[in-house]
Amino acid sequence: MINEMMYGLGSKRSCIRELFEYGLRQAAVVGKDNVFDFSIGNPSIPSPPEVNEAFVSVIRDRDSLSVHGYTTAGGDDGARAAVAADLNRRFDAHIRPQNLFFTCGAAPALIAAIRALAVPEAEILAIAPYFAEYRPFVEANGAAFIAVPPDTDSFQIRLDALEALLTPRTQGVIVNSPNNPSGVIYTRETLGCLAEILTRKGREFGHPIYILADEPYRELAYDGAEPPFIPNLYPDTVVCYSYSKSLSLPGERIGYVCVPDQAADSGRLYAAIAGAARVMGHVCAPSLQQLVVGLCAASRPDLAAYDKNRTALYEALTSYGYRCVKPNGAFYMFVKAPGGDAQAFSDRAKEKNLLVVPGGDFGCPDYFRLSTCVSYGMIQRSLPVFRELIREY
Amino acid sequence: MINEMMYGLGSKRSCIRELFEYGLRQAAVVGKDNVFDFSIGNPSIPSPPEVNEAFVSVIRDRDSLSVHGYTTAGGDDGARAAVAADLNRRFDAHIRPQNLFFTCGAAPALIAAIRALAVPEAEILAIAPYFAEYRPFVEANGAAFIAVPPDTDSFQIRLDALEALLTPRTQGVIVNSPNNPSGVIYTRETLGCLAEILTRKGREFGHPIYILADEPYRELAYDGAEPPFIPNLYPDTVVCYSYSKSLSLPGERIGYVCVPDQAADSGRLYAAIAGAARVMGHVCAPSLQQLVVGLCAASRPDLAAYDKNRTALYEALTSYGYRCVKPNGAFYMFVKAPGGDAQAFSDRAKEKNLLVVPGGDFGCPDYFRLSTCVSYGMIQRSLPVFRELIREY
Repeated sequence: MINEMMYGLGSKRSCIRELFEYGLRQAAVVGKDNVFDFSIGNPSIPSPPEVNEAFVSVIRDRDSLSVHGYTTAGGDDGARAAVAADLNRRFDAHIRPQNLFFTCGAAPALIAAIRALAVPEAEILAIAPYFAEYRPFVEANGAAFIAVPPDTDSFQIRLDALEALLTPRTQGVIVNSPNNPSGVIYTRETLGCLAEILTRKGREFGHPIYILADEPYRELAYDGAEPPFIPNLYPDTVVCYSYSKSLSLPGERIGYVCVPDQAADSGRLYAAIAGAARVMGHVCAPSLQQLVVGLCAASRPDLAAYDKNRTALYEALTSYGYRCVKPNGAFYMFVKAPGGDAQAFSDRAKEKNLLVVPGGDFGCPDYFRLSTCVSYGMIQRSLPVFRELIREY
Repeated sequence: MINEMMYGLGSKRSCIRELFEYGLRQAAVVGKDNVFDFSIGNPSIPSPPEVNEAFVSVIRDRDSLSVHGYTTAGGDDGARAAVAADLNRRFDAHIRPQNLFFTCGAAPALIAAIRALAVPEAEILAIAPYFAEYRPFVEANGAAFIAVPPDTDSFQIRLDALEALLTPRTQGVIVNSPNNPSGVIYTRETLGCLAEILTRKGREFGHPIYILADEPYRELAYDGAEPPFIPNLYPDTVVCYSYSKSLSLPGERIGYVCVPDQAADSGRLYAAIAGAARVMGHVCAPSLQQLVVGLCAASRPDLAAYDKNRTALYEALTSYGYRCVKPNGAFYMFVKAPGGDAQAFSDRAKEKNLLVVPGGDFGCPDYFRLSTCVSYGMIQRSLPVFRELIREY
């Protein structure tokens, strides 16, 4: 007898993955240059060179038993100290190494925080458009998933709608900025208003409402934008971070949870996150990757290629008549579907070997997502297809 | 508001970890050579040299984007093919690469299998002595934990007691051989009888009872012992494997689940394991480690040091009057506590800076565990303390 929920979660292919694999098959038929795949968010710029140098030097120069040995569950002390120092320097924060808990990427970090907060009847909010995996992450781990409807003018936050959804059962709000799929960074003003609401409602309910800041795209910001460090605006913030995008290490599964001292009940919350991680099979994050991150804590990606893609695609598409909030972060664009039905648009585009992700699973069924972490050449080749498609509407 | 179960799991220190950290503190007081720490199971032989060479060559010689990129959830195709070929060659098995699902070590592999089988009222059995983490792994993931009492004559399986505990709700039996903490390998005869019982009772109940074969110590066998490949004896077996011990990579978090085609409902079970992994935050196992394991699938550890430790400790302790089943696998010994209360013995030993783990959490409160993955010199220095202790009883 098999758990039907888990079977459903494992057998229903993600739409993104299906498109991506369709693209690979089509490339074999029509040629690689004639498939325009904007489906998947796999970094297309390589890791900074010092990252690969760090991998080699750790293996070559350090004691093998120590490099490959267990670290404590929270992580290697030196690596945590390096990351804490970098955060404190950049954000004028007061993170201690012991506030950090290294994880196998941002996904288990976020899920451990969700499980730590999953008291009976717990509700976790996410703000549309939201990363599609949030719903199963929450629903399969003991809480109810509540979607805040989107502000489609700017893809900031509909604060009135969010406030109306807060209840005494609300345990947390997932905040993902720079945002997947919109590419938008929540402004300091937006986050300040959110903090005010959560503070007020938390007092009313008699318990804190945590912000779960899911920040794999923190370092991917353009036009001089600086994503605010949310713990500086709202104390009850748990940061979930990943090096997947910032160091182009998505497969290497290295990230962390940070529970600052200032967060309500921070010691108990950190312990509960550690307990949740334990029964998710976390022993430690990959030790080699921890050491590399410790050596490269101050490294930042070279974003020129993503920025060039973003600008080229945004300017071309809007000139053809597509409607899109200009992204200033991450490597996505979220475009209004001509005709209003993104699934139908995606299906029609697919016939022309143009692969775009319909926004239903992101909570916005009339938008589609483009990943802009692709080659510039593919963008150029795809533009006539985008133009042709909108003319059909 | 914080989930109390998770808080409890995260705040209660493991006895092993406490002893280990006590040892580090005492070493600063009385000197490193005067602390005899048998608490922790961290490999003490380094990785085979080809493993570190593989790490360097993958980083140096392959495309960085591809090395560090996402693999599919199940894992890199080439690495899975290499592991499947190695299993088939050694065990005359018929594992396809698609039967393998790489995970961040054996713990999340086992937990994903548990969640996949966690239907309402599910029961999972474990056989004492058992790895202490099995209980929280099962209880926090939707099933009831049922302990089969130990066969203290041989640390094989009390098959009569096991059969009596099978009910229509039994979904799986965790089999850990070579065993932590006893170091014993279940014989082909024991496993054959277990298979017969599970087959018969599964038919009676109208659904399969899976064996969850937790095999991090598979390659650690002595005296010519060969741990049977359990899927060859019982079709409904899910293998959970880790390279932590076989390649001395415990911190690197690389292992797999294997669901052979022959297992009942294998396609649905594999999908449910993938679904469970997804909501545990699994995206893929660390990609670099996958590639290294693919290159080193046929590597085996040099066990001479563990074997020497095992023999020296077993012979000395039994000559002093300790009772112990001679281990032929893993790197543990499970010794009957003089006086019958292992906690009291451990406390008394601790006063002499000898650190041994009392067996309560392993389901055997009258035994203590020794990790033999230590230095031979420490074993020699510890022997007078063992002798002195038993003379006090």
